[in-house]
Amino acid sequence: MSGIVGIFSAEKNHVSPVIYYGLYALQHRGQVSTGMAVNNNGFIDYIKDLGLIHEVVSKESLERFRGNIAIGHVRYAAQFEAKNKVNAQPLVVGYRRGALAIAMDGSIVNFRSLRDEMEDSGSIFQTDLDTEVIAALIAKYHKDDLSEAMIKSLKEVRGSYAIVAMTSERMVAARDPHGIKPLSIGKLDGDYMIASESCAFDAVGADFVRDVEPGEIIVIDKDGLKSIYKESAKRSLCIFELVYLARPDSIMDEKSVYMARFEVGKRLYREFPETEADIVIGAPDSGIVAAIGYAEASGIPYAEGMIKNRYVGRTFIEPTQEIREQGVRIKLNPLKENIRGKRLVLVDDSIVRGTTMKRTVEMLKNAGAKEVHVRIASPPVMHSCHLGVDTPSEENLISSRMGISEVAEEIGADSLYFISLEGLVAATGGDNGFCKGCFSGSYPVDKE
Amino acid sequence: MSGIVGIFSAEKNHVSPVIYYGLYALQHRGQVSTGMAVNNNGFIDYIKDLGLIHEVVSKESLERFRGNIAIGHVRYAAQFEAKNKVNAQPLVVGYRRGALAIAMDGSIVNFRSLRDEMEDSGSIFQTDLDTEVIAALIAKYHKDDLSEAMIKSLKEVRGSYAIVAMTSERMVAARDPHGIKPLSIGKLDGDYMIASESCAFDAVGADFVRDVEPGEIIVIDKDGLKSIYKESAKRSLCIFELVYLARPDSIMDEKSVYMARFEVGKRLYREFPETEADIVIGAPDSGIVAAIGYAEASGIPYAEGMIKNRYVGRTFIEPTQEIREQGVRIKLNPLKENIRGKRLVLVDDSIVRGTTMKRTVEMLKNAGAKEVHVRIASPPVMHSCHLGVDTPSEENLISSRMGISEVAEEIGADSLYFISLEGLVAATGGDNGFCKGCFSGSYPVDKE
Amino acid sequence: MSGIVGIFSAEKNHVSPVIYYGLYALQHRGQVSTGMAVNNNGFIDYIKDLGLIHEVVSKESLERFRGNIAIGHVRYAAQFEAKNKVNAQPLVVGYRRGALAIAMDGSIVNFRSLRDEMEDSGSIFQTDLDTEVIAALIAKYHKDDLSEAMIKSLKEVRGSYAIVAMTSERMVAARDPHGIKPLSIGKLDGDYMIASESCAFDAVGADFVRDVEPGEIIVIDKDGLKSIYKESAKRSLCIFELVYLARPDSIMDEKSVYMARFEVGKRLYREFPETEADIVIGAPDSGIVAAIGYAEASGIPYAEGMIKNRYVGRTFIEPTQEIREQGVRIKLNPLKENIRGKRLVLVDDSIVRGTTMKRTVEMLKNAGAKEVHVRIASPPVMHSCHLGVDTPSEENLISSRMGISEVAEEIGADSLYFISLEGLVAATGGDNGFCKGCFSGSYPVDKE
Amino acid sequence: MSGIVGIFSAEKNHVSPVIYYGLYALQHRGQVSTGMAVNNNGFIDYIKDLGLIHEVVSKESLERFRGNIAIGHVRYAAQFEAKNKVNAQPLVVGYRRGALAIAMDGSIVNFRSLRDEMEDSGSIFQTDLDTEVIAALIAKYHKDDLSEAMIKSLKEVRGSYAIVAMTSERMVAARDPHGIKPLSIGKLDGDYMIASESCAFDAVGADFVRDVEPGEIIVIDKDGLKSIYKESAKRSLCIFELVYLARPDSIMDEKSVYMARFEVGKRLYREFPETEADIVIGAPDSGIVAAIGYAEASGIPYAEGMIKNRYVGRTFIEPTQEIREQGVRIKLNPLKENIRGKRLVLVDDSIVRGTTMKRTVEMLKNAGAKEVHVRIASPPVMHSCHLGVDTPSEENLISSRMGISEVAEEIGADSLYFISLEGLVAATGGDNGFCKGCFSGSYPVDKE
Repeated sequence: MSGIVGIFSAEKNHVSPVIYYGLYALQHRGQVSTGMAVNNNGFIDYIKDLGLIHEVVSKESLERFRGNIAIGHVRYAAQFEAKNKVNAQPLVVGYRRGALAIAMDGSIVNFRSLRDEMEDSGSIFQTDLDTEVIAALIAKYHKDDLSEAMIKSLKEVRGSYAIVAMTSERMVAARDPHGIKPLSIGKLDGDYMIASESCAFDAVGADFVRDVEPGEIIVIDKDGLKSIYKESAKRSLCIFELVYLARPDSIMDEKSVYMARFEVGKRLYREFPETEADIVIGAPDSGIVAAIGYAEASGIPYAEGMIKNRYVGRTFIEPTQEIREQGVRIKLNPLKENIRGKRLVLVDDSIVRGTTMKRTVEMLKNAGAKEVHVRIASPPVMHSCHLGVDTPSEENLISSRMGISEVAEEIGADSLYFISLEGLVAATGGDNGFCKGCFSGSYPVDKE
Repeated sequence: MSGIVGIFSAEKNHVSPVIYYGLYALQHRGQVSTGMAVNNNGFIDYIKDLGLIHEVVSKESLERFRGNIAIGHVRYAAQFEAKNKVNAQPLVVGYRRGALAIAMDGSIVNFRSLRDEMEDSGSIFQTDLDTEVIAALIAKYHKDDLSEAMIKSLKEVRGSYAIVAMTSERMVAARDPHGIKPLSIGKLDGDYMIASESCAFDAVGADFVRDVEPGEIIVIDKDGLKSIYKESAKRSLCIFELVYLARPDSIMDEKSVYMARFEVGKRLYREFPETEADIVIGAPDSGIVAAIGYAEASGIPYAEGMIKNRYVGRTFIEPTQEIREQGVRIKLNPLKENIRGKRLVLVDDSIVRGTTMKRTVEMLKNAGAKEVHVRIASPPVMHSCHLGVDTPSEENLISSRMGISEVAEEIGADSLYFISLEGLVAATGGDNGFCKGCFSGSYPVDKE
Repeated sequence: MSGIVGIFSAEKNHVSPVIYYGLYALQHRGQVSTGMAVNNNGFIDYIKDLGLIHEVVSKESLERFRGNIAIGHVRYAAQFEAKNKVNAQPLVVGYRRGALAIAMDGSIVNFRSLRDEMEDSGSIFQTDLDTEVIAALIAKYHKDDLSEAMIKSLKEVRGSYAIVAMTSERMVAARDPHGIKPLSIGKLDGDYMIASESCAFDAVGADFVRDVEPGEIIVIDKDGLKSIYKESAKRSLCIFELVYLARPDSIMDEKSVYMARFEVGKRLYREFPETEADIVIGAPDSGIVAAIGYAEASGIPYAEGMIKNRYVGRTFIEPTQEIREQGVRIKLNPLKENIRGKRLVLVDDSIVRGTTMKRTVEMLKNAGAKEVHVRIASPPVMHSCHLGVDTPSEENLISSRMGISEVAEEIGADSLYFISLEGLVAATGGDNGFCKGCFSGSYPVDKE
Repeated sequence: MSGIVGIFSAEKNHVSPVIYYGLYALQHRGQVSTGMAVNNNGFIDYIKDLGLIHEVVSKESLERFRGNIAIGHVRYAAQFEAKNKVNAQPLVVGYRRGALAIAMDGSIVNFRSLRDEMEDSGSIFQTDLDTEVIAALIAKYHKDDLSEAMIKSLKEVRGSYAIVAMTSERMVAARDPHGIKPLSIGKLDGDYMIASESCAFDAVGADFVRDVEPGEIIVIDKDGLKSIYKESAKRSLCIFELVYLARPDSIMDEKSVYMARFEVGKRLYREFPETEADIVIGAPDSGIVAAIGYAEASGIPYAEGMIKNRYVGRTFIEPTQEIREQGVRIKLNPLKENIRGKRLVLVDDSIVRGTTMKRTVEMLKNAGAKEVHVRIASPPVMHSCHLGVDTPSEENLISSRMGISEVAEEIGADSLYFISLEGLVAATGGDNGFCKGCFSGSYPVDKE
């Protein structure tokens, strides 16, 4: 998963702060590396490195990177991927038509065969990125300008993607034909912006205009924004964006992420209303919104059950095994006073491996909870994703290995209920198209 | 404000991880500097610098700092104080009896006269810290061992303080006679710990034993823990610890911070129940608990009204005025979908200058809120603190300058209500002694 | 200019220290960036960044980079070149046959037309490096193994170069047909090494074996070293290597750099023996050896006339104009006691712009020198180099703009003499082939 | 050993660049830590840390530290001393009269008893520095202004020292009664400067005025420079300053360091002229000047015998034992072409432990030298110094353990000769007073 953002300004000559604050709003989509590229009078400057936006871009850099067109990227690295600098984006290359910067969120399923084909004809590759393959395709079609080259290139590509690319004259954005990855258009003082999520527009004071449509390619240049291509396919937004990935204050394919999660919480109660409990708590941070919904629907009071240390960050020294066995509660601390002797409903967004939930239930019981009823705001995750979400292989998915009652026993819950797939979809406001592959095994784009 | 922690182990020779995770749990008490001192076979090593614990202490340092006695400190710097390295604590000095490390939370009101007196007799001072004056007093009484010297020294001192000091043989902890500053005793595998708040014990798997009593001085050495002195005065714990300063999962003078805030929320409704509203929201993060209490008492549904960017940190590049005027919402973004057209109750812990609340109300109204009813979980702050809480001078306290209805108008609220002082005290479970000076102007220790 | 080094070991699995100390010995060939690539069980790891070897490679990195084949590079950046990370070498790419690392010293004169041609067929380029063009050529010939591909690639290339490349199985080294750039073969405990200069072999305790011949391509693999190609052209080693670029303790095309410079100093006296002087001094550091030779030939005592601050380095804050005008002598300080009232012979390796020499003469005169007779150990530099030496354009070469007597006047010398080109060549031990283009304007390879 | 510098300007308000370049010139006197303190309108700002001047003081810091009075310090740490930040100087303290900054080169022999006495009266100490004791003494005499307090304080102190101290109004400089440590006065555009060596004046374009006399205390303020005290004792400048410590371009107690070393070289030959050799070489860098003198006196040609890597610095990764055994020549590489088959005279400044000289002789012989005749420009070092020069204890001094012929055998020299003490003294231009304790065992100030 990654986050991308771009802006084209007809008049301003210093748009990099827009990228900075836009990426800051999208940092939840990737914490491994950050980068931005800026058109500086026909020359594309860039800065990228491992780290968060505030670590990679100093005040001095932000001041120095001046120009009217810019794109940015934050990167999440899957567990098997190298966390090295060379895979930071945007990728900036020179080709027949000059400099090209490109950033992408997604996963190209025919990456290997495309790269093999290009290596067969003598290409070299300097990163492990899908993005480099897209750049190489654009270069292959260098007789066409960037707009046409993007159309031709993406015809060869299968997978999930949201792309933003720029030359010193224009910006092109594209979303895969199924719209698996989100991408939106915004407007700031008359200038068009592109971002993975609408919260990036809010961050900089821009207005949300519309989603980029599945399969749509748009161009932004001094004449404004034009939709230059639209390939129709069944809309299949990754439903995990609504369940977990996106920020709650984002709007995505016309759905409010917060309202969807809140509604799932309500339905979670309604689908299985028999539970008796004293308080409803959410697992910080991802289960909070659904827990509030559950509380409202059930009439059981919402409460906080655990306090998250707000300085939790990536550079923290992990405790040694010895210290861990002393029962440390560094990141999460149960609110003993609030849960002792109580029957809890614990709401979380999903169960993947089951190990975190097991530790949480154990911690709550040790803190005195009488009962812990686990309610999950998504169906059991049973399939690994090849379209850009970093789920583990199936043998590591607890719901793929055992039935619900066994999972309940394994995690130590007094009861366990997952929302139904229908319930989840209904909570989003009706099925105008989702990829539900991780639950159902059926994906809009097959593995290669 | 600061946070302090200490551990004395009879058997373990590597207690610095306990300080590390203890300080990590207390980081909310100070983000300007961090430090720790460790007894390494009779020699006191230390590391301290500007920054958060994870920035100051590397994995390598943590491994290298070995020993059986250690203390740590995180420092908040008041607005007028220099944020320089030299004021980082613990302070480590040599005196007649060898090395002494000392860390303190609090404010010595007769600092200037004590320091003047010692300068008159030829002393030099290398920091701006109250702590250095305490160290100098201990040295003055060097004929006595640390325990006796601490007793004699503190008799000369007036103010609020929680102190932990160590030599290579023992640890001494002290709390001011009014108990204005909190300090607790914990136990980890048979070893005694000291910490500003009990959440530090939870972080490392230690058990809470009891509070250090107001005016008590304790010594921990190879023979265990001894209470060596107790000066009686009226208990006056800073009530702002419960309102805002402490972590909600801490227990302080036998009061649960979470339960107190939750109860304040309930009473806030009951004291002024006429409000009609659609949802109750809390100002992140400090108003959340009271908002949950308010919702439970009122039956009005609790909801989230604003999303806080979870990467907000101190090294962020602040937006320029120009960018700010575009209406950026970098740290907090209102949940438009959730508040549009609704009547909100907005709960926050306090109003100090009034500027933040004004911006928040404005943001919620711009996002479509029909009404914003502000409810404050503490009385109006009308007096500046000289005992260690960083409140601005009175002319900058909005409630000192104007009446409640004027404040309501100034911040743009449709209604405004502050909890009564009696209500606040009652919510804590009854008045076993508080400093309420910022509300009432009456302090347990006068200014010099 | 750059420095390159490589080692292939049949048995050792940790050759990166050899690269580290080898590059340390070659640091004078480039201070802008440093890098190394190591074959780690079939995967090529690399580290590279702006900075000197000791800044780029930490002890921890050196420990971590394990493997049996490795290459390294230090880079000098010409004045017009960007000093950015992306141009650090070795370049590591993936192509049809797997990973390839390549490092180069030199200048490809048909760089632009080769790159244009490849861009025409759809290639992208991610750096400004000649090296990337070589890598792309090798990829173009990917049907052949690295050895054959290198032969075919270099047939398309015109210019000066010394190249070392590696896959996870072999190392290939090549020197341009004229041998403009130096390259040598060494042997360390039975393992073959490659280096720009023989001083890198001394640094690691290796033995010098022989120079790579002009136009020769060699392969080193588990079967040892093989010469696989030899293209004959007129040997034309850049004579500036002997005059200035190389370290005095290197042997290059069978010439000792020290002995050549020493001999030039002697001939410089003999060609123009009339000068009467009290002492002979050299300009630190590049004129010292020739000055010693001059002293020996003339019988005039050798002395030090200026002391160089031995902490002079690249990160020094340059004095402002205001401070400079106070007559600061930060890098070089004349030894007043030693030169006051004396007639000096000042020997330097070359005069390029003339500005440094002018300042030096002025400084010596201000320090009390009665006469300053400048003797230069190379002929007047009159032409700019397009083969990899960073000389300024001709209008900035003082000897291109004016005659010797005018130069003498401009720099304030009491007399000025340049060694003759014949004298310089003779001093090297006889003309077995040099590029003398900067003096004569006649280059072995034309500009494109 | 340390280096100190100071400037008082009546009119300029930005003197910190003078300190920066002054310390840069004195960096050879200490590489462990660097610092400077500046009077900023009555408030003394300072910056100090481990590292060289260019590492500690950034361009931004240099710009920010503004003021009209400033002092600076570079610190060498003896082998037994901690290399930690807290011992960086200048020391800046507050006392009865305000802020005081102080920096010192030297060693107080009654440090322990002075500190004990002050600890007895209740003082605390925060560093291991002699300087802190001086500051505490000045504070003891706080009823007197800095000038008087310095006079009274230094009466209590025994040892070697050069001190510069400042308040926001004046600067005081002092040199110990024997003048063991050097200290000079310079003038820059009408402003007085103080520095350990005159080369610091040259660096900033200042003129040398005179040495501070042994036992003299001077004050510089807006009324200019005044000598306020002079205690007479036998002048005893550390002769090792001339032999090794000082920069050759410095003038010290009216002696040119370069000329002294050059003259020693000449006398070294004349005292023992029988040697037959082909060339004279110096050990880089400290033996070079004497070698040039030896060559001139003997008529044997001066030559370079070893090349020093000019990037040798303190952060270099030391080779492992394994690598060292391969015969690495990382820092020094013999010039084989120049020494093969030759009889060498090798001149160095001193032999202390003997280990370096043994390795050097071995390296030269391995490189083909037929004979190596070692000539030392100082007498045998037989006694350890307690006055501030970091010599090892006597059991580690090779000349303390064995006679000259045994030393010759141990280091592998074909012959060995040390200059006589009389010769050394005569070479300096006559004995106007030296401390020769390391040779004779007789020191001007006894150990405590």
